[in-house]
Amino acid sequence: MDGINQDVKKISDLIDEEGGRQYIKKHLSELHPADIADILETLDKEKKKEVFNLLQTETASNVILEVDDQSREQILEDINKERLTDIVEEMASDEAADLIADLPKDDAKDILEKLHWKDSAEVQKLLKYPEDTAGGIMQTELLSVREEMLVEDAIIQYIALSQEVGNIHNTFIIDKDRKLVGVIPVRRLLVIKPETAISKVMERNVISVNVHEDQEEVAKIFKKYDFVSLPVVDDNGRLAGRILIDDIVDVLIEEASEDMLHMAGIYQDEKIMDPPLRSVRIRLPWLVINLATAILAASVVGLFQDTLQAMVILAMFMPIVAGMGGNAGTQALAVTVRGIALGELDFGNAKKALLNSTIAGLLNGIATGAIMALVAYYWKGNYMLGIVIGLAMIINLFIANFFGIIIPLVLKWLKIDPAVASSIFLTTLTDCIGFISFLGLATLFIKHLV
Amino acid sequence: MDGINQDVKKISDLIDEEGGRQYIKKHLSELHPADIADILETLDKEKKKEVFNLLQTETASNVILEVDDQSREQILEDINKERLTDIVEEMASDEAADLIADLPKDDAKDILEKLHWKDSAEVQKLLKYPEDTAGGIMQTELLSVREEMLVEDAIIQYIALSQEVGNIHNTFIIDKDRKLVGVIPVRRLLVIKPETAISKVMERNVISVNVHEDQEEVAKIFKKYDFVSLPVVDDNGRLAGRILIDDIVDVLIEEASEDMLHMAGIYQDEKIMDPPLRSVRIRLPWLVINLATAILAASVVGLFQDTLQAMVILAMFMPIVAGMGGNAGTQALAVTVRGIALGELDFGNAKKALLNSTIAGLLNGIATGAIMALVAYYWKGNYMLGIVIGLAMIINLFIANFFGIIIPLVLKWLKIDPAVASSIFLTTLTDCIGFISFLGLATLFIKHLV
Repeated sequence: MDGINQDVKKISDLIDEEGGRQYIKKHLSELHPADIADILETLDKEKKKEVFNLLQTETASNVILEVDDQSREQILEDINKERLTDIVEEMASDEAADLIADLPKDDAKDILEKLHWKDSAEVQKLLKYPEDTAGGIMQTELLSVREEMLVEDAIIQYIALSQEVGNIHNTFIIDKDRKLVGVIPVRRLLVIKPETAISKVMERNVISVNVHEDQEEVAKIFKKYDFVSLPVVDDNGRLAGRILIDDIVDVLIEEASEDMLHMAGIYQDEKIMDPPLRSVRIRLPWLVINLATAILAASVVGLFQDTLQAMVILAMFMPIVAGMGGNAGTQALAVTVRGIALGELDFGNAKKALLNSTIAGLLNGIATGAIMALVAYYWKGNYMLGIVIGLAMIINLFIANFFGIIIPLVLKWLKIDPAVASSIFLTTLTDCIGFISFLGLATLFIKHLV
Repeated sequence: MDGINQDVKKISDLIDEEGGRQYIKKHLSELHPADIADILETLDKEKKKEVFNLLQTETASNVILEVDDQSREQILEDINKERLTDIVEEMASDEAADLIADLPKDDAKDILEKLHWKDSAEVQKLLKYPEDTAGGIMQTELLSVREEMLVEDAIIQYIALSQEVGNIHNTFIIDKDRKLVGVIPVRRLLVIKPETAISKVMERNVISVNVHEDQEEVAKIFKKYDFVSLPVVDDNGRLAGRILIDDIVDVLIEEASEDMLHMAGIYQDEKIMDPPLRSVRIRLPWLVINLATAILAASVVGLFQDTLQAMVILAMFMPIVAGMGGNAGTQALAVTVRGIALGELDFGNAKKALLNSTIAGLLNGIATGAIMALVAYYWKGNYMLGIVIGLAMIINLFIANFFGIIIPLVLKWLKIDPAVASSIFLTTLTDCIGFISFLGLATLFIKHLV
């Protein structure tokens, strides 16, 4: 990204110079909007606004969609309403709706009034759908042709529409009630005789989603069928809009990274910039549940008070056994949860996965248990302590790896998201088994230990 | 997915009946290959093979690419070599290369010999590129036109090529040395006069990747520029192939879910079906490092042996303080790592994120600390124990949330992947601070405790 740093320095220097603006304008006009966005993000607030004002309306419209939230806020803070309206006019309906939804209420109303009535109506329609549904991410600009028409009609409509709307991949075919009945990829229009009837060449098996469908389900459909564009229909099967792959790539990525949050005990889509009270509301319930399970594990320790009293250094080693079980179990869990998410693990091949994981757990238990046994022996000069802690670790790592597969599979079978609930059960188990196996063995061999 | 279960049952019943195969053939011909793959995956091994053999070559070619690894292996196990060759002929070069790369060596050689020499040459060229590079995921089938030609030439070539190759979105423009000099989207060919010179209407600012580029970098480019297709060039800038968005969606998803593995201490791309020894090789080093840090934390406990001797129930509560710090820190860490990965957190807005997280940590510390204080008081009838454990938890959760942001940011600044190394540092810290704050406070107030 050295190129960007050079650009940024040059622009920062030139913006206040005579003739500098002209140079910047020319230079930016040769860049991709995504690259201009990168440059803007690194400029300070005032320069951000100045440089943004140098952009042509169409470029500005693409750039404002690409910059990060903070930069967007800064740029839009006191932007001229007329210019903002022009910029929004350039956007696809879904992008316009997203941008307007983020504006302060009064500004949003203002822009909606200033927009061309047709654009304004489209945007207002889209604003009614929740952000995370098919309706909330679709755009209404699309190519649709009645089934009784000819291929040449589709071509003419395509040529007209493509002056204004980008990324039209499909011709959607509708009947007289606007119901979706077929599809023809635009590039196929090139290879079919223009006088052919649409109904003869259209693909009738058209896959679509309902406007109310959750965006994660939409993402799954894109992933499964390798689509570039997907039509959206209302409850009556009427064509309402279309979703493009680039609208869904971000959903796929966010969804894939959600499991990490879930595994860490964040059950809602918490964002890094969320205010503290929202974080507390999301995180506290899980911490309280964890506290309860930690108290349960502590009460297990309570059962062995006499042993601890007899040999207080056991208290030093006890968290090691529990913690190592937790670590090993979390490894198995992460691989399992990801395997389920990527569709690589199901009930059919679970037995093999379980066997593999349990063997791996046993081997890792033997290895780390042996190391710990030696450390304990050399540190405290007590070979029996070494044996007890080594054995306890082998048991706990074995159990951890076994249940690191079993727990998420059982949750999946119960139709509970494995990423969400697995770690609670697992760490409770590894804590308890860790304490019981170590302090239990110590109690058995207490005569040889002290 | 009830539809699928019905399909599967029906097919299982019909396959052995007279006339049943005919029905299955017809039924499957109406389904999308991805749906046929879903059905095949749930059939038992023998029926899988039988049903697969009923599929037409083109469908079979799509289906074999869609089924999971296990089913693919089963289906290909003793498939007729001629049929497999026909199936491979139907595939795009990148898909053929992927499939052949997975075959036993002798089978692969056999198929490569049977393939049409041109296909075979393409596949062998692709097999030379590592799987995770642009060369390894690109296909060589593409539409390329010399810059001195006319739009109508491009249209003619497109029409010819589209009979065999799907998903052609762009016309790549090359010079006499096959160097990539421009691009025109195929759908634009519809709207330009056929007699126009290519060089007049092509987009010259064409973004491409080198064949050796890592696939994760390729994925980032797709994500940044919202591409559907991206040209690949060799070291001399000559057009070598193209990558489609659906080849990269899986990379984006795998990459997004990789952070979860990293956070859990799995540093390589371990798959759920990996053999135990590979799992051990991947997981053991991290477990050993963790063991070292656990021993470090244990030695902290060792400093307070006298206190523990004086009041052995402290040993019960001590893991609660350390564990809760770890839990809270992991929450902060997951949100931070995800924020960095999704590009929502950088050094510019880190201060605000840090403030938010620290406030959240303090509030969660106060809440869970208060609960724990009450539990300890009622359980052991010792109000001073409640105060000590409550205070220790507030301190530890505060520290955990502070460093849950700081550690990944510092690692990012040092250009180390934050997802990989953060949790080691964090849990060591929360263990040590947990033990020190709790046992330290207990030591200070030991007179009031016992």
